[in-house]
Amino acid sequence: MTDIKQARILIMSTDGFEQSELMVPQEKLTAAGATVEVAAPKSRMKSGKIYGWDKDDWGKTVSVDKDLEDVDPAEYDALILPGGQMNPDKLRLEPKAIEIVKAFYAAGKTVAAICHAPWLLIEAGVIKGRQCTSYASIKTDMINAGGEWRDEAVVTDKGLITSRNPGDLDAFSAKIIEEIEEGVHAGRRQAA
Amino acid sequence: MTDIKQARILIMSTDGFEQSELMVPQEKLTAAGATVEVAAPKSRMKSGKIYGWDKDDWGKTVSVDKDLEDVDPAEYDALILPGGQMNPDKLRLEPKAIEIVKAFYAAGKTVAAICHAPWLLIEAGVIKGRQCTSYASIKTDMINAGGEWRDEAVVTDKGLITSRNPGDLDAFSAKIIEEIEEGVHAGRRQAA
Repeated sequence: MTDIKQARILIMSTDGFEQSELMVPQEKLTAAGATVEVAAPKSRMKSGKIYGWDKDDWGKTVSVDKDLEDVDPAEYDALILPGGQMNPDKLRLEPKAIEIVKAFYAAGKTVAAICHAPWLLIEAGVIKGRQCTSYASIKTDMINAGGEWRDEAVVTDKGLITSRNPGDLDAFSAKIIEEIEEGVHAGRRQAA
Repeated sequence: MTDIKQARILIMSTDGFEQSELMVPQEKLTAAGATVEVAAPKSRMKSGKIYGWDKDDWGKTVSVDKDLEDVDPAEYDALILPGGQMNPDKLRLEPKAIEIVKAFYAAGKTVAAICHAPWLLIEAGVIKGRQCTSYASIKTDMINAGGEWRDEAVVTDKGLITSRNPGDLDAFSAKIIEEIEEGVHAGRRQAA
């Protein structure tokens, strides 16, 4: 059991995140009393911010707290991966980003990905045999990776949380709090 | 054998195509004497143009000749699919776009996809057992779809042409002309 007020949560992202998918969970978890930090690749640290995407164009920026290279997964209770078409596609090419996903997953910590961010779960090799959802366009990639894909607002499989799109953000955020409070998730099936 | 000067080529795209990946093949094939048309989803037909993406922001526009719904693959010798992070991700959700890829493929016609556009080949189910390449970020999706992925500027397997990124455009465009001139590609392995 983890008190959400004591929880430390990492949001991992880069330019082109779907604005609401970073900012809504960030706001809701902060309001619930958690400590929330944002990590981004070194290339983003010069300006100290990353650029969101709002429907058809660049949107608001979000401050970055930490270089991906300096992230120690042991310091956090949960990992949140916002979507957008560009952000997770760029992070797939960052070995440290994939290493971070694997480390949170292997430690049984809550891992939450929405929209196109489940691509990072594919890249980390943690989708095989897992109940999951995603943005509709990447459904085929999720199934080809061995995921058991469902068209639901939020799907949870032993602390691995996935949602489809910004319309699911309330359910996604509430489930993150619930799963963090449950504590470490034992019994995750290993990828074959 | 098909004379490139008699060839009719369809470029299928929507907003967010990587600018050079549409415009360079369009220019080179037109210069070689081929007739090149651009098809886009109905939602793009009102303005009659689609918006390119140039590195970090929206770029030039390209005129659209045809609504996807009105495309008859029998009228063309080849299909070209430009990349970009947004364009093919959007087209994956258009059933008619996937039907068009399947029809060109089934007819043994040249099908050429670059960068992120091989996602459309995944969606059409034509990658299994095929030699291919793609933008590095979607390599895992290509392999999960059963593709035999190689890190080369252009990979051809019985008229199915794939390239990695804008740096490969000369090789990609030259290979399209070569494969069109070879004519219809018999002996394509069927997806299992």
